[in-house]
Formats: sequence, C-alpha cells, structure tokens
Amino acid sequence: MFKDIKLCEDRPYYLQIKDYVKELILKGVYIKDDKLPSTRELSLILDVSRNTVIEAYKYLEDEGFIKNIPNKGAFVSYNSIIYDEGFNVKWEDKITDYAILSDELDTYKHDIKWKKGMISFKSISPDDNLFDMDDFKKSFLNILSTEERKILNYGYARGYKPLIDYLLKYMENKGVNIKNKDILITNGFTEGFDITLSALTKRGDRVICENPTHNTSIKIMNLHGLYIDGVKLNEDGIDTNILKDKLAESKAKLVFLVPSYHNPTGIVMSPEKRIEVYNIIKEFNVPVIEDGFNEELRYSGSHIAPLSAFCGSGNGVIYIGSFSKILFPGLRIGWILADKELINYLESIKRSRNIHTSFLDQAVLYEYLRGGNFEKYINKVRKVYKERYEFIVYCIKKYIPYKKLYGEGGLHVFLELDGINSRDVLSEAFKKGVIFTPGDIFYTDGGGENALRIGFSRVDIKDIEKGIKILGDIIKNMRKGD
Amino acid sequence: MFKDIKLCEDRPYYLQIKDYVKELILKGVYIKDDKLPSTRELSLILDVSRNTVIEAYKYLEDEGFIKNIPNKGAFVSYNSIIYDEGFNVKWEDKITDYAILSDELDTYKHDIKWKKGMISFKSISPDDNLFDMDDFKKSFLNILSTEERKILNYGYARGYKPLIDYLLKYMENKGVNIKNKDILITNGFTEGFDITLSALTKRGDRVICENPTHNTSIKIMNLHGLYIDGVKLNEDGIDTNILKDKLAESKAKLVFLVPSYHNPTGIVMSPEKRIEVYNIIKEFNVPVIEDGFNEELRYSGSHIAPLSAFCGSGNGVIYIGSFSKILFPGLRIGWILADKELINYLESIKRSRNIHTSFLDQAVLYEYLRGGNFEKYINKVRKVYKERYEFIVYCIKKYIPYKKLYGEGGLHVFLELDGINSRDVLSEAFKKGVIFTPGDIFYTDGGGENALRIGFSRVDIKDIEKGIKILGDIIKNMRKGD
Repeated sequence: MFKDIKLCEDRPYYLQIKDYVKELILKGVYIKDDKLPSTRELSLILDVSRNTVIEAYKYLEDEGFIKNIPNKGAFVSYNSIIYDEGFNVKWEDKITDYAILSDELDTYKHDIKWKKGMISFKSISPDDNLFDMDDFKKSFLNILSTEERKILNYGYARGYKPLIDYLLKYMENKGVNIKNKDILITNGFTEGFDITLSALTKRGDRVICENPTHNTSIKIMNLHGLYIDGVKLNEDGIDTNILKDKLAESKAKLVFLVPSYHNPTGIVMSPEKRIEVYNIIKEFNVPVIEDGFNEELRYSGSHIAPLSAFCGSGNGVIYIGSFSKILFPGLRIGWILADKELINYLESIKRSRNIHTSFLDQAVLYEYLRGGNFEKYINKVRKVYKERYEFIVYCIKKYIPYKKLYGEGGLHVFLELDGINSRDVLSEAFKKGVIFTPGDIFYTDGGGENALRIGFSRVDIKDIEKGIKILGDIIKNMRKGD
Repeated sequence: MFKDIKLCEDRPYYLQIKDYVKELILKGVYIKDDKLPSTRELSLILDVSRNTVIEAYKYLEDEGFIKNIPNKGAFVSYNSIIYDEGFNVKWEDKITDYAILSDELDTYKHDIKWKKGMISFKSISPDDNLFDMDDFKKSFLNILSTEERKILNYGYARGYKPLIDYLLKYMENKGVNIKNKDILITNGFTEGFDITLSALTKRGDRVICENPTHNTSIKIMNLHGLYIDGVKLNEDGIDTNILKDKLAESKAKLVFLVPSYHNPTGIVMSPEKRIEVYNIIKEFNVPVIEDGFNEELRYSGSHIAPLSAFCGSGNGVIYIGSFSKILFPGLRIGWILADKELINYLESIKRSRNIHTSFLDQAVLYEYLRGGNFEKYINKVRKVYKERYEFIVYCIKKYIPYKKLYGEGGLHVFLELDGINSRDVLSEAFKKGVIFTPGDIFYTDGGGENALRIGFSRVDIKDIEKGIKILGDIIKNMRKGD
C-alpha cells in the first residue's frame, strides 16, 4: 500500500494523496473505523512534507471519508457500500425516435475524419492563427476588473445587457430598423434556429428554403419533423418564380434563407433580388428566418443590407446572427433580432433549455467589440481570406475540369462537376490525403451528387495549390475512365 | 451636421465617427455619390486628429459604405434602400402551444421581483462574494498560455477532454463505477435534464418524481408533455411504499430523484433509504435520473454515495451534475454521467441543439479544478454557509410559529406553516421588504399552499435575523386574525 502512488506535478500533492486514500476506502481496502497511517509515517513513506499529509487528511475529513481524532489519529468514517451489478437497462428499448434520428443525422459521427497531415477543404471554421490573442486577453482582464464577480453568477436569459445594446446598434448600422425589435442572445446560430423553430413550427409543417442549403439547418428541420420544401438556386440565388409558386401552392409556416455567402454555394443575393424576394414573402405574409451567415466577409463592392433591413418597421423577418462563424467559435455566441413580442416567447424557451448563455463569454466578447477589436480583426482577416479565395479560384480554374463554380467570397466555394460523383472523388482523394465536403448533404431532394463544397479558411496557399491539383488529377482521371 | 455628435471615452473615436457617418448614409442624409467632408475639414469640426478621421473613412470603405478616391475625396458608394413598412405578421396566429406554455410556466417573468434594499430569501444561488477571483483569473491566464487559440475555435459536442477526464475521476471519487460509462458536458443541469428527457420520453409518458420537487424540473417535464406522477415525501425522504405502488401500477418511463439537499425541502436521503430506493427501481427496471444537486454542501456526517454508485457496473442510473449551483453559475457548466451507449445518443442531441458548450469556459473551469481551487473554495464556503444555515434555523425556531421545518444543509430550508397560506404571507412580506419562494410552485399536485422555501445563500447574518423576524411577525399576526 502507498507504494504504487506516483505523484505528478500538475496537481497539488495533498490532493493526489487525498484521492489515493479515498480510493483505498472506496475499494474497501480500508473499512470503517480502520486507522490510517499517522501523518508522520505517511510523509516518510511518500517522501513529502508532513504538512502535505496533514492537508490531505484535512480534506478527507472535509469530504466525509475520515475522522481526525486529536492524539489518536485518523480513522475511516465512511461505510463502503456494496455495489450491485444487476440494474441494467436495454437502451434500444428505451430510446426515442428523436434520439435515433439525431444519431443518424449526425454527419460529424459518420463523415470521413481528418487525420494529421491531410489537406482538409472540409472545414469552414475560421483560421485560429488569425485570432488576436492579446486583444482577447486584455478584454478578459478589463471586463473582470470592471464587472468582477457579477459576471460569474447567474445572469438573464435575454443576455448580457451591454452586449444586447451593442448588437442592437450593430444591426442598426446594417440598416435595420430596430424599433419594436429586441435581441435574444443564444449559443450560436444553431440554438437560435432550433429555438425559433420550436416557437413557430409543429411536426408536419412545411418550411421553404433554398436548395441546396446549410446541412446543419436541414438536420435541425428534420429533427423538428418538418417537411422541407427546397427551391432551386440559379446562379444569382433563389429562383423567385419557383419561390412564388411554392408559396401560392399551399400555406408554408416559414421561409428560411441565407442571403449572403450562402452555405454551401457562396452566392450573395443582389440588392435587386433581395427586394424581389422581400416583396414575394410580404405578399404571402409568411415569416422569414434570415441567416446572417458570414455577412462580414464581403471582399469587394458596396455593403448589402440584410433582408431584415428591407421591412423597415415591419416585423416579418427574424434575423439570426453569429460572430462565431468568423470569430471565436469556441465561445458559442449568436443572437436573434426579431419583433419584441416574438423575442418574449423565445426568451422563455431559451430559459427552459439552459437558463442563459455564459455571461463570462458574453461579457468578454462585449468588451472585445467595444474596444474596436472586431473592426481591426475583420480588416485583417478579410485580406487574408480574400487572398486565399482568389488563389483557390485561380487554382480550381487551372486544375479542375468543372461544370460550374459558385462563390463570391466567404470561406468556401462550391463546385459542380460534369457527370462525376463527388463521393467517388472523395474516396480517391482521401487515399491521397485530401478531404472536402460532398455536396449531397446540402440538398433537400437527394440531389448534389456531382457537387462539392471546398472550404479554404484553414488551408494555406501552398496546400491550396497542392490539394486542388490532387483533386484535379483525380477528376481528370475519372473522366478518362469514362 | 456633425454638430450633434458627442464623442465618449469608452469606444475609440474613429469608430464613433464611422458609426455616425454610416447613420447619415443609412438615413439618406448622404446619398450615393455624395462627397463627404475632407478628412482635414472634419477633423477641425470634430476637434480630433486628422488620422482619426482617416481611420474612420478607411473603415467606412472597408464596410462598403464609401469609396476613397485619391486626390478627389471620399464619396458615398452605398445605395440607401427604401424601407417598406407593410410586412407585419400577427404572432398570436403563428406561435406554437409549446411557446405559449414556455411563457406561461416561466416563473421568472411572473414572480414578485426583488428590488434594491429588499431582503431576499428567494435566491439559492451562491454568494459571489465568496468566489476567489484571483484563482479564477490565474486559471484563465494559465489555460490561455497552454491551450492558446485552440480553445477559442470549434470544439467537440462531447466536451473538453481534460475536463471530461477530470469529472470521470471526480465521479469515481464519489464511489461511482465508471466502467462503460461516459460523460457529456452540458450547459448546466437544465440542459442535461432537457436533453435526457428528449432521448427517453415522448409526450404523454409518465415520469415518477418526488413531490414536492425542483420547480425548473417540473417546468421542463411539463414542456415535454409528460404526466408527472409525484410521490409524497416523508421526513426522511421519498415514501418508498408509495413509490413501489406507483411503479407497480403501470409502467413509468423514468424516475427522477434529488437524493441530496433535495430542492425544495433540503432533505438528504440516508444511505439505508438509498439502498431501499435502489432496490425498488431495480426491481421494476425503470431508469433513474439522479440530480446531484448541491451534493458538495454536506456540513456534517460521512460522505454519502450517490445513487449511481449503488448500481456498480449497472447502467440504470443517469447522473446529472453541475458545479454551477455552487460555483460560477454564470459559466453554465454541468455534466451527464451515464452508460456509454446512452451518452452516444445524448451527444448527437446536444450537437443538434448548440454544437457544444463554450470551450473557453470548460477549459478555464478545468484549470481551476486541476489546481485544487475547488477543494479550497468548498472548504471555505462550507464554513460560511454552515454558519448561515445554523443561524437561520435558530432564528426560525425563535421567531416563526411553524408546523414543520425541513433541511439538513445546502443553501435553503423549507417550512410548513399551520393553516396559513404562504402567498398571503408573501404579499404582506413584500410590503415590508422581504421575499421568499412560495411552496406551491414545487408541488406536482397543487399542494404546498402552506409551505415556503427560504434560501439563505446570499443573505448576511444581520439580514437573516431581521428578515426572519419580519416573517415571524406577519405569521403571528395572521394566526391572531383567525
């Protein structure tokens, strides 16, 4: 006993000794009323100071495992329980269809996994080498010194007030009329979308969206049991004739749109098209969820107002924004901007799901934004991503025989191949150390078998050329094989 | 123009000027192709350096609102949109029953609100004056220097690996057999409970729990459309005869229990009773959700193993733990410890709800725990809360004529009055600046009208006596009035 304990450096010794003794008690090596070695004795065996053992024994008493009796020593006070092994549940009999579907639709689990050394065009998450860690650290220390312990206690479901006010102003600066509107802070876009669907849809309801569209959104709509009615995209975005027909056909509950840097195609809907789309949804009076995805990553041209700006003081557009797509995704902060009345419902749903989003994260992010770090950051990353974007377009044109290339910025482009199945390309590419996202997962109708999404946010210039060339060679070879 | 701009100190000047000019453009004061004042001119008007204006114009160009033409000046490039006012949706026609129920059951919205200067026995959240801010800050700086930017990018739904490993060991140290079990990190208990119900119950299913029980749990079960079947509590916890009868009656989907510092009564289920309860649920083979609520706040006596320890390598108990009830609730970190197979499903549900819990928060919390700060903190707060607990019990006995007093530790006690309605007491108390939680919100069957929960975690000794005396006087007066 005590011979096999190995004290490591990354946790205080007294806690390691505490845990070790506790283990002996829990395993029944020491039983109730047994005397433990004296602190002097144990300090010699373990070659630590006597105070370290005294500290360990103090915590063992604190946690109710031993009793220190003055002048007598330490005695086990815990009555070890006899473990039963018989209570086993068969989960397959207990699990809901919802849980099974969640697992089935969880592409993260079933996708080809990135391995060290591979070139991955799969990710569209930001390159963390571009994060300003010093600015982030400063924001943390600043907010901790002004807000102190308050931000570590319970907050409000609605969110951290200064951040909400900042974002209201931020949305106003995109041209949105914020009168009678409010903001709910969420754990990223995903939660914002999930909560909004819970408030506005029931199983079997019909939702109209672009086809293809964001695969996570498809997953969430499927989990809500919705009938997903996709509208074909033309080169400049959603086909408005089809949109109109679908809306006329039968009442839809919602329209879901990604007007900027559409995921997966990267198409940016023009201001003219936005007006056209806006007029259609207004005519049919169907609420729209607008995903403000990567709106900040415009590399050229004028600012384009979000759809929610077009309805002025009207309330029909629900805007879901998120910084976490371009900045600190690990923090999970997004927001819903919508009519006050709707936000009031969404707030209660949010509270019933997880009380509120981390106030520490909200406060640090607020402080970071307040100080102008976001503008500085965006200015920097726009240049880097623009360079990668232009270079990958150049490489694709040079190396890959494709049918159509979509994407006007953002962190990804979308390719349509000519009669070649992108999953076949992926299995070959995987062998050669290159991965990407096959297009089919973005389609609402089983299409997209010839498409692929190529994310470039985390691939450097050298690897972009190398990876695209590998893809090009595979595709050329396949065409020859025809 | 530019006369009404007031530059404040808490945001860089160039950003305030940028926002101001943007506003003028969005409002149509400046329209497309208009020339802005020169940087020299504007710097004189605003009494700032010329560089400040140059910086502001740079960002305006960055964001696509103006175009800087060398030697000519800055011109508006954004085409202001004409706002439409006509797209208005009637939310009352669109909102789901689920959203309406969320709002109705949201006690936070409908409860009597605390006002400055009041003595509040409503809260059972930790006293943030007891948080070790220096240790927290050190943990943040440490983890940022070891993990760096990684913890700010996307993480895994399951959670931050070092934290998961730490918690597995932590649960083992409570006597739990972790073989074939795993952990999912959640945004506090609330999310853990919500996700688990989604995986294991459908609308109309029957769940057995203690009566009274935690009001947030009642809310969540109601939102899941469950039939909540409460089992009467005796002075030592759940009535095992009734529990047995209810399980025999018809198949329940789940049993939900709060064995330690039961909310609202504060009862701690004895080891003997735990064995008895364990044997009953095992006999009927119904999975149990165990809420590990405030387990750490044992003020005297031996460690009591959680129910999940009793089933050894069996898989029937799902343990939901949370530090956020006693430490940093603002961070929203909890965990589910359960069979690996079940955790695999819960992981996918978690991913579909909000991708993952903040990795920054998880990493900081891990670093805080690793360094032994939690043991140090608990050791400190136990003394403070124990003192408050003992003092409030003393005061209640001295001032309040009650029928029964429950509570063996934790951060609250529970009182049953003799034929006096606690909501009547509350309206009188409110006028005198004292609030508490009326007992009825904890009951599954409309009971509890004579009960009140008194939280003392954030009330100092002086106010405890003052507040309890006020309650006592009100209750005595009401008895006289009978």
